[in-house]
Amino acid sequence: MGQEIERKFLVLGDAWRHDAAGTVYRQGYLSTVKERTVRVRTIGERGFLTVKGLTVGATRSEFEYEIPVDDADRMLDGLCERPLIEKTRYVVATGGHDWEIDEFAGENAGLIVAEVELEAEDEAVELPAWAGEEVTGDPRYYNANLIAHPFSRW
Amino acid sequence: MGQEIERKFLVLGDAWRHDAAGTVYRQGYLSTVKERTVRVRTIGERGFLTVKGLTVGATRSEFEYEIPVDDADRMLDGLCERPLIEKTRYVVATGGHDWEIDEFAGENAGLIVAEVELEAEDEAVELPAWAGEEVTGDPRYYNANLIAHPFSRW
Repeated sequence: MGQEIERKFLVLGDAWRHDAAGTVYRQGYLSTVKERTVRVRTIGERGFLTVKGLTVGATRSEFEYEIPVDDADRMLDGLCERPLIEKTRYVVATGGHDWEIDEFAGENAGLIVAEVELEAEDEAVELPAWAGEEVTGDPRYYNANLIAHPFSRW
Repeated sequence: MGQEIERKFLVLGDAWRHDAAGTVYRQGYLSTVKERTVRVRTIGERGFLTVKGLTVGATRSEFEYEIPVDDADRMLDGLCERPLIEKTRYVVATGGHDWEIDEFAGENAGLIVAEVELEAEDEAVELPAWAGEEVTGDPRYYNANLIAHPFSRW
């Protein structure tokens, strides 16, 4: 199984916005027990229900089903644990890489992070001017922490 | 919304078996939090994932999706809370009614209950000879209790 190598940076200013088209993500959890998490997510106009188990060795059980987006919205609005994670994801091509920029909303409003996926840990990356402090591996920026400790309360 | 009127009885002997064809049910839970229960179930060769919210007035949010039976089996075997509810359901037509007889297995082995659905609470029912003690409304026989306190430990 492949291992994702990603670097994550805070985002400075608005210069990255000019050519970026965003997709709205909303996600919430029906179970956050780590042996059996159940996530509801909408990506634009599509809905998904995802069940994940524990990682054992290199294997994590994961089952994802596309569901009607209206069902997903009703579960997000009425059933999921609070708060939800809400963000708009922009993909910006620069320096030979596609960067994913997540601009959070709701209780994490004000947080903007950019991620770039690499082939190798020592691969050189030309950092765009809007890439600020590197926060790769900082647990404060994990989704689980953004639910338990949203950015607006930091 | 309709209200189900059902009477439930313990089952005596094996006389009901002669013409009954059974379907195997297995079910388990990814979440038993009452605000957001998530149930995995197989009925014969079909799999289902069901999300339910709280009952508010006469309305309970419920979302059910058919999923590949292999996925359901893997979730039941590897992810769901223990114990599972396992039973074979038989439908027996007698006295003008269809009776559902559930013969439990696993940690509830030894328990056999029969249910009949009625049009009205005072509808007369011709009780078959194999219908024993009535246990309608007895919470010990609810699914939630059969998970928390399986019959084999009574």
